[in-house]
Amino acid sequence: MKRVVIVGGGFAGLNAAKRLGKVRDVTVTLIDRQNYHLFQPLLYQVAIAGLSPSDIAAPIRSLLARRKNVTVLQGNVERVDFESEKVFTDFGEIDYDYLLLCCGAVPSYFGNDAWEPYAPSLKTLPQATEIRRRVLSSFEAAERTEDVQLRHRLLTFVVIGGGPTGVELAGAIGEMSRFTLAKDFRNIDPTLTRVLLIEAGPRILPSFTEKLAARASRDLETLGVQIWTNSFVTNIDEHGVEIGEERLQAATVIWAAGVRGVEVPGGPELDRSGRISVETDLSIPGYPHVFVAGDQANFTHQTGKPLPGIAPVAMQQGRFVAKTIINDLRGKPRQTFKFVDKGQMATIGRSRAIVEMGKFKFSGWFAWLTWLVVHIYFLVGFKNRFFVVVNWAWSYLTFKRGARLIVQPKDQSQNVRDENDATVED
Amino acid sequence: MKRVVIVGGGFAGLNAAKRLGKVRDVTVTLIDRQNYHLFQPLLYQVAIAGLSPSDIAAPIRSLLARRKNVTVLQGNVERVDFESEKVFTDFGEIDYDYLLLCCGAVPSYFGNDAWEPYAPSLKTLPQATEIRRRVLSSFEAAERTEDVQLRHRLLTFVVIGGGPTGVELAGAIGEMSRFTLAKDFRNIDPTLTRVLLIEAGPRILPSFTEKLAARASRDLETLGVQIWTNSFVTNIDEHGVEIGEERLQAATVIWAAGVRGVEVPGGPELDRSGRISVETDLSIPGYPHVFVAGDQANFTHQTGKPLPGIAPVAMQQGRFVAKTIINDLRGKPRQTFKFVDKGQMATIGRSRAIVEMGKFKFSGWFAWLTWLVVHIYFLVGFKNRFFVVVNWAWSYLTFKRGARLIVQPKDQSQNVRDENDATVED
Repeated sequence: MKRVVIVGGGFAGLNAAKRLGKVRDVTVTLIDRQNYHLFQPLLYQVAIAGLSPSDIAAPIRSLLARRKNVTVLQGNVERVDFESEKVFTDFGEIDYDYLLLCCGAVPSYFGNDAWEPYAPSLKTLPQATEIRRRVLSSFEAAERTEDVQLRHRLLTFVVIGGGPTGVELAGAIGEMSRFTLAKDFRNIDPTLTRVLLIEAGPRILPSFTEKLAARASRDLETLGVQIWTNSFVTNIDEHGVEIGEERLQAATVIWAAGVRGVEVPGGPELDRSGRISVETDLSIPGYPHVFVAGDQANFTHQTGKPLPGIAPVAMQQGRFVAKTIINDLRGKPRQTFKFVDKGQMATIGRSRAIVEMGKFKFSGWFAWLTWLVVHIYFLVGFKNRFFVVVNWAWSYLTFKRGARLIVQPKDQSQNVRDENDATVED
Repeated sequence: MKRVVIVGGGFAGLNAAKRLGKVRDVTVTLIDRQNYHLFQPLLYQVAIAGLSPSDIAAPIRSLLARRKNVTVLQGNVERVDFESEKVFTDFGEIDYDYLLLCCGAVPSYFGNDAWEPYAPSLKTLPQATEIRRRVLSSFEAAERTEDVQLRHRLLTFVVIGGGPTGVELAGAIGEMSRFTLAKDFRNIDPTLTRVLLIEAGPRILPSFTEKLAARASRDLETLGVQIWTNSFVTNIDEHGVEIGEERLQAATVIWAAGVRGVEVPGGPELDRSGRISVETDLSIPGYPHVFVAGDQANFTHQTGKPLPGIAPVAMQQGRFVAKTIINDLRGKPRQTFKFVDKGQMATIGRSRAIVEMGKFKFSGWFAWLTWLVVHIYFLVGFKNRFFVVVNWAWSYLTFKRGARLIVQPKDQSQNVRDENDATVED
């Protein structure tokens, strides 16, 4: 009985566990800090109050409940030791015969970690609800104040990073201000909200063709999003954003510009982007029983460049590692991982999207429908899929957003007296 | 143009604002610390992961969007001054001609506030998600540990207070452990979980008839809930609960035993339960333009005893105050508030409930259906109602719970190294 330990319950880990859960002669232990698997491609929908956290997350435990040889443990991995083949956790040591590291990525501020409190990223559910709180609280505070300068600052939203996440976030905030909130306020006009998308490079969505990116730019502008390209952020503080000599007063700034791999103490050296370089079979050089998959892996053997940190890569790598372990047990030779690229897509608000699938490139309503179908298909578990459909159908018909709650970051009682410091903005 | 200020967007404030929003010669300002109206009767469903926060809450602003003379402001009321007729908030002063105070209630630990960190209450959304986190985290921690004593303590859940909230919580935890989680764990057997319901009085549900309460007790026992009556809690700490000479080791303790009215500085003296005694027209003695409604009001003129702190009382009082203000403007005399009691009900897990409506008293599946229909009917806003139906239908068919996420109380990145102290239990 071979013991497989998987660290991380994201797309890579979950797919590996599912595949290995069908094999009799292995036991699998999956460890994750969270009790849930998160469908990260839709995290921006939680941030802009389109979906609830439970719409895009499901307990790892229940996703793997039928795989009787898989044990799921919630906990922290503190260190790995490849020589003694042990994983050290906050609840004890675990021996392994095979180890799969797939801990994902964290935001990278490119050395400017001081910016983080002013410009949260979007990688986790708490971050998504924090961004939701900031965005909605800014509108509330603007409605309350009579200070024109302050109101101007409160109604400025800056998204940094013109990749798919930044585009989707900016588009959704633009749509929210232009449509969803348009009639809810008395003292402010939400349709005058400034939404800025800042990109350091010459254009947004560099991974797409120029034509599709241009279409996305036009769609964003229709929603009132102002796109600033060739704009390199030099500072972020409580007032807003500095771009060289230019300054923007903004109460809400969101960072969507970069990520790096999670570091595992005891693991091998990392490359510049914090990832672990892997062999053609996704194992670590010198340790054929240790694999890395997903955002944490740097796989350059296919194109010469690292594969992108997207869900399809993680899913395929997770399944590949499971198959490799099974092949090992059956005495079959190892193979080379090959990513099958099925295309990429991004959505820009309601009924607008761009899709690139091999030779097929299209945009507009049909692209949006494609985006919708693909994302719902991949959402884990029937229940989530179904609810997301209903929720979206509702939003589409009514322009309402279902999850527009500002939930305080910590427990605060409703006593009006002794908590006058405890309202909304940070 | 008369200026009406409403403090609090609960059942009383929302209903008053809706009624006054139809009148031309008043302007209404509704102030609330939160941006959302919360359907408190279903809060326990969020605590035990049956519903998402956004299922039972909706932005006050959008609920009142069509009432053009109503302005909603999110903020704290710090003080009221009845002489100068002003409300002092953290964003400035507001003058009023009529004032309605309906700030609700907060948990009361009867002088033992030190118990609160060990036994959270269930009055707000953050409290509900905190209880959810504790309950689910206890199962996770029990799965991880091999310490039998610790596991025993982790799998003990104590609910203090045998009123409807306590009964519904205990029943739901019992059901979750017996059915929902039964097959998800490898090292523990969730069906052996201890769920205890502690009541100081001689029986649970004292507001119901003895026969119905007995039926509820039997239903709870079917779900594995152990009921301890005549048990007066004398201490709560990190180990568990003390009841006189008896001690219970419990990792999760929930307080559902008592509430008191919210205190408003500058307001009148409070009675022993922290509420404000009101005249027959819900105004404050000596200040006919200041009204109190909902949990904050102590209205004894109907039965000699205070009316209970339940949603129907708050809704009827809110509408009554609105009507009184309108009557004042039309020169009509004031009337006496009369609560129309339409009955009470409580649910005990899936397809079990008790209902008392005047002479009609019934229990079982039909009572549960009645409970379901009534609660859905009163859920504010079509969207919420619809989603709650779908969600419940789903839970009913599958025994699954949709919102079983342990979301960390504060933002924590996924780095495995430097946060080994940041997992689950408190």
